Amino acid sequence: MITSRDNRWLKRFRAALAGVREDDGMVGVEGVRLVEAALGSGLPVEALLISELGARHLARVAPVMATDVPVLRTSDKLFASVADTQTPQGIAALVRPRQAKFENLVSGTALLVVLVGVQDPGNVGTILRAAEAFGATGAATCPADGIGTADPLGPKALRASAGSALRLPVVHGIAPAILVAQLSKFRVKLYAAVADTSEEKSENGSTGSNSPSLPPWEIDWKIPAALLIGNEGSGIPADLVRTADGRVYIPQAGSAAPIGVESLNAAMAASVLLYEAMRQRIPARQERK
Amino acid sequence: MITSRDNRWLKRFRAALAGVREDDGMVGVEGVRLVEAALGSGLPVEALLISELGARHLARVAPVMATDVPVLRTSDKLFASVADTQTPQGIAALVRPRQAKFENLVSGTALLVVLVGVQDPGNVGTILRAAEAFGATGAATCPADGIGTADPLGPKALRASAGSALRLPVVHGIAPAILVAQLSKFRVKLYAAVADTSEEKSENGSTGSNSPSLPPWEIDWKIPAALLIGNEGSGIPADLVRTADGRVYIPQAGSAAPIGVESLNAAMAASVLLYEAMRQRIPARQERK
Repeated sequence: MITSRDNRWLKRFRAALAGVREDDGMVGVEGVRLVEAALGSGLPVEALLISELGARHLARVAPVMATDVPVLRTSDKLFASVADTQTPQGIAALVRPRQAKFENLVSGTALLVVLVGVQDPGNVGTILRAAEAFGATGAATCPADGIGTADPLGPKALRASAGSALRLPVVHGIAPAILVAQLSKFRVKLYAAVADTSEEKSENGSTGSNSPSLPPWEIDWKIPAALLIGNEGSGIPADLVRTADGRVYIPQAGSAAPIGVESLNAAMAASVLLYEAMRQRIPARQERK
Repeated sequence: MITSRDNRWLKRFRAALAGVREDDGMVGVEGVRLVEAALGSGLPVEALLISELGARHLARVAPVMATDVPVLRTSDKLFASVADTQTPQGIAALVRPRQAKFENLVSGTALLVVLVGVQDPGNVGTILRAAEAFGATGAATCPADGIGTADPLGPKALRASAGSALRLPVVHGIAPAILVAQLSKFRVKLYAAVADTSEEKSENGSTGSNSPSLPPWEIDWKIPAALLIGNEGSGIPADLVRTADGRVYIPQAGSAAPIGVESLNAAMAASVLLYEAMRQRIPARQERK
């Protein structure tokens, strides 16, 4: 039983669950679904923390739990003091995240999603969830003109990802110039998601790149491809859009209304584009039953 | 200048902004983007409430504002006391929502989204946003086995919808049996979004309906169609699935992982399915520039 005197463990859990990455690099996950995802991910789990209330969840996670994972027990009150959630489920884990290298992202017929200054952790998590669901081989995060992308392993992003942020290989904080060079080296085409066809005109009125914006279904997603998703407000920096091999936009109806919908949010746009890539890649009728 | 003595207006705004629908049926919207959407929607706006701080937003909404909308001014402190948001922008409106009838939803080549026990207001709003973006003709909300769908005009749903909940014709709280009868009357095909191909087996092991679950691209969305989206946890009630003309599921990759992603969340699934309908309906290259 961990008590308030066992300060070392409680401190580590409190920091990790709040999204503070300490020197040990451990990520904290909380709640039965995420702990189950962590244990099932194959990643090293350093410890489980279980409150009195949380003990009932042990049966659910037991089938995916390695026998050598230390299980620390604590009181509901102490658990609540280290938890990041308002109504904690009483189960948490410390996980060592995957250290992905760029070449891990592009195995096979690459399908990458690159988050460029996506600030909302809920969007970041949802995009990674869609990426895993639709068969992306990896993800990368980039800053955009000094705006960083939210940490995919922070508590809100991890929850929104439903565990995908632990399973999908992700390279964190790669500089746009390095990204472009690496994609070129691995012969991965780069597509920038833009809000509409008219975006990215340079000062003299000509479009920033030679190629037109295409709807998702006119892009060949069967070849190795990376998809850039930009900041919720400002999109992808213009110079990065210009270095892309193409621009993709999602056609929208409803232009009849005097003030129509603004562009879909970043997570919805990414879901739709990743679905389109999956649709093209899936062998005809393979999944049909 | 509205002061705390002008209790009538402040009370009405407080109730409406908290999502309480009073006898007058008015909906409260808050923030410059939603107020702009309300003013631009063509719906009757009964009053605007502007704080000292919010006055700077008047210039932005002026172009879409009818000249006869009363503008009530108040202090920042009183505005904060009626606002539903934590950091209010100082601008709010009382709007009379559209009273849609079922026949309004099915004009032209109908594309309906029907929310069946979708409880999370963020999901409800996001689904309506996707519906409008992808050209749906309307939406309906249904209860599912006693679980109601969150009010699309409640504050969280309205924000997540980015105003679409005001613009899209929505019929609220229709009983599933009536819905099915109405769709049949208007010759609209009904498709139930299910989590995977194996769902909806009856006790004897045979599937509940005669038709197989199909991936989105094997369904003909060019004919009048309605899409059922179910509760986040329990999906669509089995008897409603059985009355549908077909079931649609979204194929997913990543089955290699021991614990893969659970189904996409309701909002992501709806976005992807509505995108697929739009993709099929859009005339080839119409939107291309």
